[in-house]
Amino acid sequence: MTFSAVDVITAKREGAELSDEQITWVLDAYQRGEVADEQMSALLMAIFFCGMQSRELRTWTDRMIASGETLDLRGLSRPSVDKHSTGGVGDKISLILAPLVAACGACVPQLSGRGLGHTGGTLDKLDSIPGWRAALSNDEMRAQLESVGAVICAAGAGLAPVDRRLYALRDVTGTVESIPLISSSIMSKKIAEGTQALVLDVKVGRGAFIKTIERARELASTMVTLGEDHGVSTVAQLTAMDQPLGRAVGNALEVIESLEVLRGGGPIDVRELTLALASTMLDLVGIDVDPREKLDDGSAYDVYRSMIMAQGGDPDAVLVPARVHEVVTADTSGYVTSVDALCVGIAAWRLGAGRARKEDPVSAGAGVMCLVREGDRIAIGEPLFELYADDGEHLARGRETIRDAVAIGEEQPEAATILLEKITR
Amino acid sequence: MTFSAVDVITAKREGAELSDEQITWVLDAYQRGEVADEQMSALLMAIFFCGMQSRELRTWTDRMIASGETLDLRGLSRPSVDKHSTGGVGDKISLILAPLVAACGACVPQLSGRGLGHTGGTLDKLDSIPGWRAALSNDEMRAQLESVGAVICAAGAGLAPVDRRLYALRDVTGTVESIPLISSSIMSKKIAEGTQALVLDVKVGRGAFIKTIERARELASTMVTLGEDHGVSTVAQLTAMDQPLGRAVGNALEVIESLEVLRGGGPIDVRELTLALASTMLDLVGIDVDPREKLDDGSAYDVYRSMIMAQGGDPDAVLVPARVHEVVTADTSGYVTSVDALCVGIAAWRLGAGRARKEDPVSAGAGVMCLVREGDRIAIGEPLFELYADDGEHLARGRETIRDAVAIGEEQPEAATILLEKITR
Repeated sequence: MTFSAVDVITAKREGAELSDEQITWVLDAYQRGEVADEQMSALLMAIFFCGMQSRELRTWTDRMIASGETLDLRGLSRPSVDKHSTGGVGDKISLILAPLVAACGACVPQLSGRGLGHTGGTLDKLDSIPGWRAALSNDEMRAQLESVGAVICAAGAGLAPVDRRLYALRDVTGTVESIPLISSSIMSKKIAEGTQALVLDVKVGRGAFIKTIERARELASTMVTLGEDHGVSTVAQLTAMDQPLGRAVGNALEVIESLEVLRGGGPIDVRELTLALASTMLDLVGIDVDPREKLDDGSAYDVYRSMIMAQGGDPDAVLVPARVHEVVTADTSGYVTSVDALCVGIAAWRLGAGRARKEDPVSAGAGVMCLVREGDRIAIGEPLFELYADDGEHLARGRETIRDAVAIGEEQPEAATILLEKITR
Repeated sequence: MTFSAVDVITAKREGAELSDEQITWVLDAYQRGEVADEQMSALLMAIFFCGMQSRELRTWTDRMIASGETLDLRGLSRPSVDKHSTGGVGDKISLILAPLVAACGACVPQLSGRGLGHTGGTLDKLDSIPGWRAALSNDEMRAQLESVGAVICAAGAGLAPVDRRLYALRDVTGTVESIPLISSSIMSKKIAEGTQALVLDVKVGRGAFIKTIERARELASTMVTLGEDHGVSTVAQLTAMDQPLGRAVGNALEVIESLEVLRGGGPIDVRELTLALASTMLDLVGIDVDPREKLDDGSAYDVYRSMIMAQGGDPDAVLVPARVHEVVTADTSGYVTSVDALCVGIAAWRLGAGRARKEDPVSAGAGVMCLVREGDRIAIGEPLFELYADDGEHLARGRETIRDAVAIGEEQPEAATILLEKITR
């Protein structure tokens, strides 16, 4: 059936529900090049304003999945379960979680991305390990899932290719921040990847792109519904992203911190969030193993080493922070009332750990070590942050930003909770 | 100053007022090709939803004018005054009004367009006169204004060229129906054309693209403000467009009817609307002449003949309706309670008088003659419409549509008024 792009845009603009036929036609015609970018961007903006009903969104997501290949992981000897985070500052959880959950008996197909803006990308972090490669073929990925149980690699171009075009278009047309568009973009790739179960870590707070709990709930329940409708057991965990997760923010810095956690140590918040997400993932695939044991007995670390080696990386390589280094100290005494994750994320980005455009390189060693957390008592002159950069120019840029990252007051703030709500169907 | 397109789009999307610098940058960068069509269409859709404040709209219009050349008609020996109609069915007023107002002592620089969809274009109507040409250079137009006093020609590509690109973009991206975008598109060309005064005929009703009086008021006052802000004395007349204007709908058919009015006859509603608009135009430029006299004494007709001849046309050519012809009769008796202008317009279009795409040709002779008006008493079997087409296929298409154009009831409806409200600053 053939429609006119103008009619579809106008219908959505006027708040109508698009029919399955209209949605199928417009996405297929866009893929064929018959609907132009300027028409699709107008439609995306109309969707930004008018939203999509769940039936529309399900069809929209179906067509994005159908635009490319889909993997089938059901033939593997273990159940598959994946995790997706909507992006936070210092979020290195995947590096620990994938091997941990594999050590407990599931397999974890983590197709990841690179960072843009103030949030880092898992692939950028692992790239700081000499020899490690992100690009795997579908067959390599499957083989590694069978042999090692965990894989963190780049999503292949064959999965939901229309999403790739739509994402690039949204990025330049101010249409990123739309719950149906975000949901269909994330879920089309996860569903196409073939995982049987999925835990969504939906970040909310200053350092996340979702700032309010209401919006986080809406995004989470939209994605959970989409997953369940497509036969993927899906649970969302809302987690606080007001202050950075752990101490390290930067690529190699976060890998170093992840190794501490994999060896049974590391920051409490990173350990606790990882364990909570691992439990939820294991529940979804019916594995009754306590992930705490697998972290403490070294099994998770062993899987991590195998996972890195399987992708050409040297797990024993010594990772070092960037050479230009500075300590930022407190200029007043009191309680740390906030450590602004957005501010720290931007500082790390400016120090060289992040990129402004997709094609920019990132520094492996640059970043921020956060030496205080909300609620800490601090005296004047005590260290707050360590900054790392490859040169003085980047250091200066990061220094300028980090000033505003900490607030110190006289009253001790309430203890922050990371785990907020869990959203199931 | 340089901005990012995404920032400008996002600001408008969030309902912010854009700064003059942002508006200037985005339109200039669009003209230079640095802002892409897909970015502009997203911005246009955001403007559709969030509107523009009057300061924003003034700057937006300024930049559209500044994107091309502007004419200066102040050196002419007579004051200049133009009319613009937002488009109706059977609206042949320009063909009578331009020579009439010139006959009263003003000069009328009518830069016109072609028809698209169910409303006809003034240039298409005049094209049915053998030899007549729509394209004049700026110098030819000025010379004709001085010698004849009236010119109806195609707007040159040099006036507000960004509007031409924006209009084409809006046409394919579902962003036509936005009051600030409509207003800036119309007014940028009229201001660039250099007229000193302007009367806007804002059509409202079934056969107009504006269906409600509230929206017509909003469009009218937006355009009046834009005109006055740019030094053009501007008044808007809201007029009813529920039933067609006059009896003739079609290109040659409307020229024939215009000639009847220019000779002192023709349908009352066409004559009265023309006289009302002429009086308003003459008032604006301070000319105290009764246009009724100039219509009745043949002076307007003389100017019409000179105007057609100056553009190569033969004013004595005999125009004939298309050869395939059919009369549609009433299948019940009673009062005509409505003659649906939209329906008649679509029928004329399908008979061959209009075009679906810009590049389509139109038939000179095709169209509809409306033999009844609202309030007429009609008996079963009496004629309602005459249909004209170049072939039986077109006739069949028009016949199918015209069925629904008339409603006949038992009670006589109230007499319809054409002249509604006048909007001044």
